[in-house]
Amino acid sequence: VAELGFDADAAEKGGYEHFMLKEIHEQPESLANAIRGRLDFNLGSSVLSGMGTSSRDLAEINRVVLLGCGTSLHAGLVGEYAFEDLADLHAEVHQAAEFRYRNPLIGRSDLVVAISQSGETADTLAAVREANQKGAFVMGLCNVVGSTIARETGRGVYLHAGPEISVASTKAFTCQVAVLLMIALKLARGRRYSREQGMHLAKQIDSIPEFVRATIAQNEAIAELARHYADNEHAFFIGRGCMYPVALEGALKLKEISYIHAEGYHAAELKHGPIALLEEGTPVIAIATDIPGKDKTLGNVEECRARGARILGVITEGDEEAAAYMDDVIRVPACDPLVSTIPATVALQLLAYHIARIRGCEIDQPRNLAKSVTVE
Amino acid sequence: VAELGFDADAAEKGGYEHFMLKEIHEQPESLANAIRGRLDFNLGSSVLSGMGTSSRDLAEINRVVLLGCGTSLHAGLVGEYAFEDLADLHAEVHQAAEFRYRNPLIGRSDLVVAISQSGETADTLAAVREANQKGAFVMGLCNVVGSTIARETGRGVYLHAGPEISVASTKAFTCQVAVLLMIALKLARGRRYSREQGMHLAKQIDSIPEFVRATIAQNEAIAELARHYADNEHAFFIGRGCMYPVALEGALKLKEISYIHAEGYHAAELKHGPIALLEEGTPVIAIATDIPGKDKTLGNVEECRARGARILGVITEGDEEAAAYMDDVIRVPACDPLVSTIPATVALQLLAYHIARIRGCEIDQPRNLAKSVTVE
Repeated sequence: VAELGFDADAAEKGGYEHFMLKEIHEQPESLANAIRGRLDFNLGSSVLSGMGTSSRDLAEINRVVLLGCGTSLHAGLVGEYAFEDLADLHAEVHQAAEFRYRNPLIGRSDLVVAISQSGETADTLAAVREANQKGAFVMGLCNVVGSTIARETGRGVYLHAGPEISVASTKAFTCQVAVLLMIALKLARGRRYSREQGMHLAKQIDSIPEFVRATIAQNEAIAELARHYADNEHAFFIGRGCMYPVALEGALKLKEISYIHAEGYHAAELKHGPIALLEEGTPVIAIATDIPGKDKTLGNVEECRARGARILGVITEGDEEAAAYMDDVIRVPACDPLVSTIPATVALQLLAYHIARIRGCEIDQPRNLAKSVTVE
Repeated sequence: VAELGFDADAAEKGGYEHFMLKEIHEQPESLANAIRGRLDFNLGSSVLSGMGTSSRDLAEINRVVLLGCGTSLHAGLVGEYAFEDLADLHAEVHQAAEFRYRNPLIGRSDLVVAISQSGETADTLAAVREANQKGAFVMGLCNVVGSTIARETGRGVYLHAGPEISVASTKAFTCQVAVLLMIALKLARGRRYSREQGMHLAKQIDSIPEFVRATIAQNEAIAELARHYADNEHAFFIGRGCMYPVALEGALKLKEISYIHAEGYHAAELKHGPIALLEEGTPVIAIATDIPGKDKTLGNVEECRARGARILGVITEGDEEAAAYMDDVIRVPACDPLVSTIPATVALQLLAYHIARIRGCEIDQPRNLAKSVTVE
């Protein structure tokens, strides 16, 4: 009986050592499922029927409020950049617990997007109820079909990421970001975004699975360089712009499964305090892909190196200028800056996974953590 | 000559071992200077002539955008709560570097408050110039009179905190918060805030120096309990609502001067990842004063205790219910929740100071840090 259990377990993991590694590898397919049928290459827009709304309704929205906890909160932070940069819409992100207890300033012209993989996160659900009370246009971004948040919002977009077993979220995060980009594209096209711009972005979104596949192809190289970072008890992740939430997510992933005290920081904030902690060999993971502000991030990398930090850069393929600043690099494909948040995150998922594996951690079930936080 | 230098140094420090300790102790006086002549107890409002504006101009404002870096950013986060809760105004805080590189969505009905002790912070200055370009109503919150930000904004409120020598900011932060509360009071009175509410808050603001004095009076007790926290290389600070930025600031202070990897977290986020790092004896500093959401924070404290964390609570005087959850406590006077952010911060300044002193750190000049960051 025990042996049968073992076989079943191995079969479930599809030959991978852990669910997390399996789910990381599933991402090209999960993302393809999240995107399939939702892009309109003719209009340069997206088709999200679950939102159950007309272009006229969407034109009334003048602010987007994103709600989530943990990894979903980080997806929301990427979404904030997308809504502001593409659709010129004010966007803000709230930790769901904070939102629900604050008598939030919110009304009928606000689009509230509640992000929760399970659709059962207690704080996010309570925030949804609060936003409904205020007459906002509330939608859910859930993975689990028929979950409470999906039902109570009545409208939304499912991720179609497939079941996520590992406590540390991977494919749900990347699918959340992909769906947020499609929502932003739709809102952008209802505003100043031209058909040509829309078509370009739609094509970039359509290529996400391929960008992620190219990143995962470096799995063995990442496993190799992870050895240099596995013995430290501290790590700092830095980024700017839409790579700032990627830095937060990279740090959270490493923290959750390896128990290394990893902290994500805005690259410009480093000098205002945390740089004091850098010592010879302290790992700094810099997300320095080719986006606006990259040169400033490279300047911050230089400052960290001067204090002896060991730098791992996530950079754009072919960017030898950025590579010269780093001790180690992971390369992600050249693509639209917002889209590149997804392969950059996948690179950091693999890094966290391999560091935790080397440290002998219980990857799929980290101590003290639950898959979905259904208590307050 | 050497001896004379030593004496001069001791004299400058007014008998304190470090500038930081001197500046912490100066806060009742600095705050009195920041507040003096700026409260109108008759109208229940504040008088801030440096803003150079009429009530009619202020009535046109429909959003407040706060800009800063490091400690000033944390002051801005407290301000965000004040503007939303008191004046029902949308408020948002931006890391200054992020704001300047983003082509921010901002216009003539936005009040932009640039916060910088020195008035020379490079990123904040660049953000001010960007906000000026967009035709926003821009003001400075600086300590150094005649500094570049003060001059370029043309309007603002000086802190009158006196010169701050220690690299780790203490009195500038508390004066920034006090001034932000007065600005919020003024805007609130131009909106739905009644004269009676205004008078109550004005009296609370007027009592800040006294609340801070009562907190500083516990200096020796804090020095004593700091011994329990000085041997750890990690620490977590948690809070909710307006105490969330206080948690961030407390963590930053400890990090800067003691080189302990301290991280501030929203109390509700703990379960979504970082709780995995808690081990027997990991310090958790919980800011659990008597504000809305305190019971939820106490619930989070319970979860941390169950994982063996050692809990230091910053609680309201006389709150024996909260005290029962903690291993150690620092008590701050009972007062308005927003006002209580100031004594709570002072408690954490003293904690950081004594931990750094026990660890033998170079308190006034932490490695790698400059007093004002005038490069990007």
